Amino acid sequence: MGWFPVLGLLLCLSVGLSEGSKLLVAPMDGSHWLSMKILVMELSARGHEVVVLVPENSLLIKGSQTFTTVIYKVPYTKEELDGKFNELRKGVFSPPKFSDLMTNVERLVNFTTMQVKGCEYMLNNKELMDQLRGEGFDAMLSDPFIPCGSVLAHMFSIPAVYFLNGLPCQLDFRANQCPSPPSYIPIFYSGNTDKMNFLQRDMTYQKLLGEGAIWLLRNDFTFQWPRPIMPNMVFIGGINCVTTKPLPADLEEFVEGSGDDGFIVFTMGSMVSDMPLKTATFFFEAFRQIPQRVLWRYEGKVPENAPKNVKLLKWLPQNDLLAHPKARLFMTHGGTHGIYEGICHGRDNVHRMTARGVAEQLLIFDLSTEAIKMQTLSSLHHDRPVPPLDLAVFWTEFVMRHKGADHLRVAAHDLNWIQYFCLDVLAFLTLIVVTVIGITVKCCLFCTRKCCGRGTAVKKKQA
Amino acid sequence: MGWFPVLGLLLCLSVGLSEGSKLLVAPMDGSHWLSMKILVMELSARGHEVVVLVPENSLLIKGSQTFTTVIYKVPYTKEELDGKFNELRKGVFSPPKFSDLMTNVERLVNFTTMQVKGCEYMLNNKELMDQLRGEGFDAMLSDPFIPCGSVLAHMFSIPAVYFLNGLPCQLDFRANQCPSPPSYIPIFYSGNTDKMNFLQRDMTYQKLLGEGAIWLLRNDFTFQWPRPIMPNMVFIGGINCVTTKPLPADLEEFVEGSGDDGFIVFTMGSMVSDMPLKTATFFFEAFRQIPQRVLWRYEGKVPENAPKNVKLLKWLPQNDLLAHPKARLFMTHGGTHGIYEGICHGRDNVHRMTARGVAEQLLIFDLSTEAIKMQTLSSLHHDRPVPPLDLAVFWTEFVMRHKGADHLRVAAHDLNWIQYFCLDVLAFLTLIVVTVIGITVKCCLFCTRKCCGRGTAVKKKQA
Repeated sequence: MGWFPVLGLLLCLSVGLSEGSKLLVAPMDGSHWLSMKILVMELSARGHEVVVLVPENSLLIKGSQTFTTVIYKVPYTKEELDGKFNELRKGVFSPPKFSDLMTNVERLVNFTTMQVKGCEYMLNNKELMDQLRGEGFDAMLSDPFIPCGSVLAHMFSIPAVYFLNGLPCQLDFRANQCPSPPSYIPIFYSGNTDKMNFLQRDMTYQKLLGEGAIWLLRNDFTFQWPRPIMPNMVFIGGINCVTTKPLPADLEEFVEGSGDDGFIVFTMGSMVSDMPLKTATFFFEAFRQIPQRVLWRYEGKVPENAPKNVKLLKWLPQNDLLAHPKARLFMTHGGTHGIYEGICHGRDNVHRMTARGVAEQLLIFDLSTEAIKMQTLSSLHHDRPVPPLDLAVFWTEFVMRHKGADHLRVAAHDLNWIQYFCLDVLAFLTLIVVTVIGITVKCCLFCTRKCCGRGTAVKKKQA
Repeated sequence: MGWFPVLGLLLCLSVGLSEGSKLLVAPMDGSHWLSMKILVMELSARGHEVVVLVPENSLLIKGSQTFTTVIYKVPYTKEELDGKFNELRKGVFSPPKFSDLMTNVERLVNFTTMQVKGCEYMLNNKELMDQLRGEGFDAMLSDPFIPCGSVLAHMFSIPAVYFLNGLPCQLDFRANQCPSPPSYIPIFYSGNTDKMNFLQRDMTYQKLLGEGAIWLLRNDFTFQWPRPIMPNMVFIGGINCVTTKPLPADLEEFVEGSGDDGFIVFTMGSMVSDMPLKTATFFFEAFRQIPQRVLWRYEGKVPENAPKNVKLLKWLPQNDLLAHPKARLFMTHGGTHGIYEGICHGRDNVHRMTARGVAEQLLIFDLSTEAIKMQTLSSLHHDRPVPPLDLAVFWTEFVMRHKGADHLRVAAHDLNWIQYFCLDVLAFLTLIVVTVIGITVKCCLFCTRKCCGRGTAVKKKQA
C-alpha cells in the first residue's frame, strides 16, 4: 500500500491549484440531472464556485445551499410543462403503435423539445448572456443532450466538459472523431435521424460538440459493449451509486420484515409514477402470488383488496434500497441510472416492462440463474482504480486548471473527409500510376511499331 | 478530499483479494527491463509470488531478493552476447548508410535476434515447461517485443498483461483491433515489414498478441499523438520516474557547485557508454564553451586537456539527476525512458544526437525558449488521477483476480476481415438491389413491349 502518500500529495496539489475555480453548469432537466447533481455537489464541496443554469419552470432541478443557481425565463408555464409530461407518462403504457424504437424516439423528442425551446429563449436573453460572460468562468459542465451548454461554451470561449450516458445516432462518438466499425458496434436508435432532425443540424451540432474538452461518459464496459474509444473519454458509469444513505425508519422496518425471501424494488423511473388501472391490476395480482415483499413507486389508482406484501410510495430511495442486503430483484423500465445501480449492487434486473406481458414474465422469472451473472458484473464494475465520482471531479478540475485538454484531442478534428480518408493522397498516387502506365504503354507501342517496322524492313531485305 | 476513505477501502479490498497470486514474468533484456523491474518489485512488495524468467547470459536482468528468478539456458555465451552488443554500440556513431530509419530498424533487429533465439531454446526445454505449467500461475506479465511471454501465456492458458512502449508497424494496435486512420496516425518504422520479417509471422503473432488481456503502454498523450484507443489499453508513461532517490555525495557536491548556471545531463542510454574519440572530442570542445557543468555517462577515451566542467561517469542515476532543481538540459539519444523522465521533471531535451552536427547544435540551442514548453508538458504529464506505477499494479492484479479482462475485449477479435468490413452484408444488399433492379427492368421491358405492341396494333387498326 506504499503509494497512498504519493497519490495524496498529487491530489492535494491538484486540488490546491484549482481552488476557487469557476464552473458554469448547463444541466438537462429530468432524470439526467440526478447524477450530474452528485458531481455538482461534490465540486461545490471542494471549494469551487459552481453556477447552475435553471429554467424558471423545471421538473427536478431545484436550488440548493451548496451551489449558486441562475434562474432564467422560459416561454412556457409550469402547467404547460407538467401537462406535456402527463401526456408522455400516459403514453408509456399504451401499446406501441409502430415499434418500440419509434415510441422511444418520440418520447425522447418530446422530452427535449420544451427544454430546447427554453434554451433558445435563454440564449436570446442578451442581458443574462452579458452577465454570464462577465463572470469569467473557467469551464462549462454540460449535458450535451440539449445543445445549450455547447453553444454557451463556444460563445464564451471556455472549454466544455460533457456529462452524458450517450447521444443518439452515435453523435457523441462521431463528434469526437472516434472510429465506429459498424460490424461490431450496433447502431443505437438507428432510423431516427430524420425524426430527430439531425440531418439538418448534424454537421453544425456535431462540430460544436467536437469542441468538447472532456467527455464524462456515464457508462462502463460491464454494460457497454467494448469498442474503440478516445483519450478524452472518461468512463464514470455508476457515479450515481457510490454513496448510500440509511433507509428511513418505516422502509427499514418493511424490508427487514421480508425475511429470507427478501424484497423487490419496482419503479418506472423518475418521471413515471402512474399507469392505467388495468395494467396496474396485472402487477398487483402477480405480486400477490410471490413470497417476496414489493416496494413500488406508484401514485395511481389502487384496486380494492390490494395484496399486503406490496408497499406503495411516491418516491423511492432507489439506490439505497438496491444496496440493502435483502434486495432480491429490481424491476425497472431500463433507465441508465437504474441499470447501473442494479449492476453496482449486484441486483438482478427485469428491464423495459412497458408491455402487458410483464406480469406473466415476472412470475416465470427465475430469480437465481441470472443473479450470479449480475454479481459477476457487479464485481467487475466496482473493480476500478478510481471511483467514478472522483474521476469525474478530477477531470472537471483538470479542464479548469489547464484551460482545456488539448493534448487528448485527436488531429482528425482539423481534417475534412477527403483528407480523413486520404482520398487526396490516393488520387495523387492513382494519377502517378496512371501516368506511368500511360507513358510505358505509349513507349512500348512506339518501340513495337519501330521494331516491327524495322523487322519487316530487314525481312524484306533478306528476302 | 472526501474520497480518500472510499478509495482506500476499495484498494484494501482489491489488494486483499489478490494476495498470494502467482505471476509469471517474461521480460526483455536491455533497457526495457529497467522500467518493468519497477512494476515487478512493487508487485512482489505487495505480497504476490513473482517468478521472473532470466536467460543464463543477460545484459541487465539480474536476480533479486524481492522476486524469484528461474534461470534458463540459452544457445550463446556471455562473450558472444557482449561481442554482439559492442558491435552495435560502435554502429551508433558511424554515419547512417541508407537512412536513419533503416539504421534504427537494423539495430532493433540485431538487438532482438539473440533474445528470440534464447526464447526458442527455452520453449523447447520440455522439463522447464512442465515445471512452469505445474506452478499454476494466475497471469503472465510480458514485454511483447519478443514473443516469449505471449507463447507461454497461450501454452499455459493464462491471461497476459503486456508491458510495452509500442511495437513496430503498429502491431500492438492492430493486434488489439484498434482502428488507426492513416490520415492522422503516422506510420512508425514504416518500410520495415520485410526487414523485421513480419510479413511471415504477422498473421500468427498478431493473433497471438490479440489474446492479451491488458496492455500497459509505457507512454502517454503528452508525448504520443492522440489517437483512438481500446478499453483494455492502460497508459502508464512515466512509470520510471515516479520515485527519486537522493544523489550520492560526490554527485550532489558536483551539481550543487554548478551555481545558477546549473548542469547538463548527457547519456546515450543504458546500452551505449562509448563513442569514437573524434566524436567525443566534438562534445568536449563544445562543453568547454558553456557555463553549465556537464554530467556525462562515458567510458571511452578522454582527450588530453579535457574541460573541467565535465564529469565522466560509468553509470548515471538519470532519473534522480533530472529531478534535481539545478538540472537545465537533458542530452539523450531519445530512448523512451529518458524522454519520459525528461517530461516528468520538466527538463528540456536534445534528442537523437547520433550525427556529427550535434556539438554545434548544442551551442546554438536556446535553453530558455523550449524550457517553458517542456514545463507545460510536465505539468500535464503529472496531472493524472492515478500515478502510473499504481495503475500498472492495479491492472496486473485485476487480471489475476478476474482471470483476464474479457469485458474490455472488443468483439472484432472474433471477426474475419470480410465480416469486419461488413463485406458479406454489402454483398447481400448489392445482390438484393441488383435483383430488384433486374426484375424491375425486365417487367418494364415486358410491359413496354406489350403496350407498344398493342399500341401499334391499335394504330394499325385506326389506320
